[in-house]
Amino acid sequence: MTDVREEVSVSERRELLAAALDFADLCAKTTASIMKSGFDVSKKDDASLVTTADVETERVFRVGIQERFPSMGLLGEELGESNEGADFRWIIDPIDGTAEFARHLPVYGCIIGLYYKDEPLLGVIDHQGMGVRSHGAYGLGAFTNNTPLRIEDCNPGESGAAARIGLPSLASFLRPSDASAVFRAVVEAYPNFRVYHTCYAHTLVASGGLDASMEWQTPLWDLAATQILIEEAGGHYGSIQSSEGSGKKRLFSAVFGKPAIVARLTEIIENTLG
Amino acid sequence: MTDVREEVSVSERRELLAAALDFADLCAKTTASIMKSGFDVSKKDDASLVTTADVETERVFRVGIQERFPSMGLLGEELGESNEGADFRWIIDPIDGTAEFARHLPVYGCIIGLYYKDEPLLGVIDHQGMGVRSHGAYGLGAFTNNTPLRIEDCNPGESGAAARIGLPSLASFLRPSDASAVFRAVVEAYPNFRVYHTCYAHTLVASGGLDASMEWQTPLWDLAATQILIEEAGGHYGSIQSSEGSGKKRLFSAVFGKPAIVARLTEIIENTLG
Repeated sequence: MTDVREEVSVSERRELLAAALDFADLCAKTTASIMKSGFDVSKKDDASLVTTADVETERVFRVGIQERFPSMGLLGEELGESNEGADFRWIIDPIDGTAEFARHLPVYGCIIGLYYKDEPLLGVIDHQGMGVRSHGAYGLGAFTNNTPLRIEDCNPGESGAAARIGLPSLASFLRPSDASAVFRAVVEAYPNFRVYHTCYAHTLVASGGLDASMEWQTPLWDLAATQILIEEAGGHYGSIQSSEGSGKKRLFSAVFGKPAIVARLTEIIENTLG
Repeated sequence: MTDVREEVSVSERRELLAAALDFADLCAKTTASIMKSGFDVSKKDDASLVTTADVETERVFRVGIQERFPSMGLLGEELGESNEGADFRWIIDPIDGTAEFARHLPVYGCIIGLYYKDEPLLGVIDHQGMGVRSHGAYGLGAFTNNTPLRIEDCNPGESGAAARIGLPSLASFLRPSDASAVFRAVVEAYPNFRVYHTCYAHTLVASGGLDASMEWQTPLWDLAATQILIEEAGGHYGSIQSSEGSGKKRLFSAVFGKPAIVARLTEIIENTLG
């Protein structure tokens, strides 16, 4: 069966990737300038934080998409969805890790993804505060700061307790319902974990800094660039379960990284969920 | 009772601090140059990693101390103790977070502390890979990249579940004996935690990025700069317990940050230990 993404020619994919990288530059410039000049922080209905930088960065991105790709779909964390049902759908989380941004920690990131007929076509994760950017596109490979990425699977014995995995904090397993048993089972199997609580963990998995990572019940935009980035780097990406609901309300869980660890983590999580 | 550190005049403290910052420059230059040119990684007897960068950075520091302060004591992670029993004792962890350094994650740090008659006189934590340096000295304040630091205590209600704390990974609570009950009790009380697994968490507590953090059963050099940095920034630092033994074998646990959270964390840990 042909992958539906083959319908988009290589040269078109290259052009779309170039556009995504231009948009990432624009977003990075906007966020950096607001970080420098100061910003307001407020709480959203779900108690998560939003700053004037999140909103302005997404606005700048939307203007860019509307100018260059007016008929394509667009879903953003802060400003909603437009052109619903279009074959191409851009997804943006302008600042993933707003709580980190608000405290001036550089591990936040801008996530840009483009899907074609519900399949991930390209993705960019840009850590403007660290000068680190990863990108990947279907059939075109994955890169961090333009170095090609290659996720190697574990050597026998390396997939156990010594493996370095990324995790969300326990707080993320307590909503929308209590899944703290999943957290406990995972940390017991992989006690050598890190918690950055942003897409920096995704970048690190793609780049070899972590062996695997996961997200738990998080909106689509948090994962918008991850699947294509990991798969183009040679890793595995597995969806665990997604909640009911649609659009902004739907939540996703995923495990990604070295194939042996993704398989083991998936098994642990499925056993825990019963 | 007069603090014993008053025996060191303000001008002498300033001179020692200036020297410590010079040494930090020297270490940063050495580490950065080796990061660039490549390094070998090997396992120590305790299964932790060491690289040629750890050893060379500490060697350069030792040469500097021997030239400028030949009669002062010196304890380093990689190359042992000299001038034991001297009033002034320099302590260095040339690369805290060697496992991060080996994977090219910039959250590792160089820790330099100076103790006078067993009291912390000054400390520097330098994150060369991130361009972030914190320092503090007795009576002279604490700074990150030369901005004065001020740890404010929590507003009522802020010391609970929403507080952001730093933690070692579960792996650190499994040695030298199983204290996973401490980890479980702490994350239940503070589910919104981060795990950087290096002294970057200490820098963040001093600089306002985290509300509190802790270390569990770790050698003295991992904490060599932390107490003075936190206390000069206005936070609290509490030792929990230290293991028996002496020198390189002795291990320390500590909680530090906003006073209300340090008090609560200490209570949780002591209740768990029984």
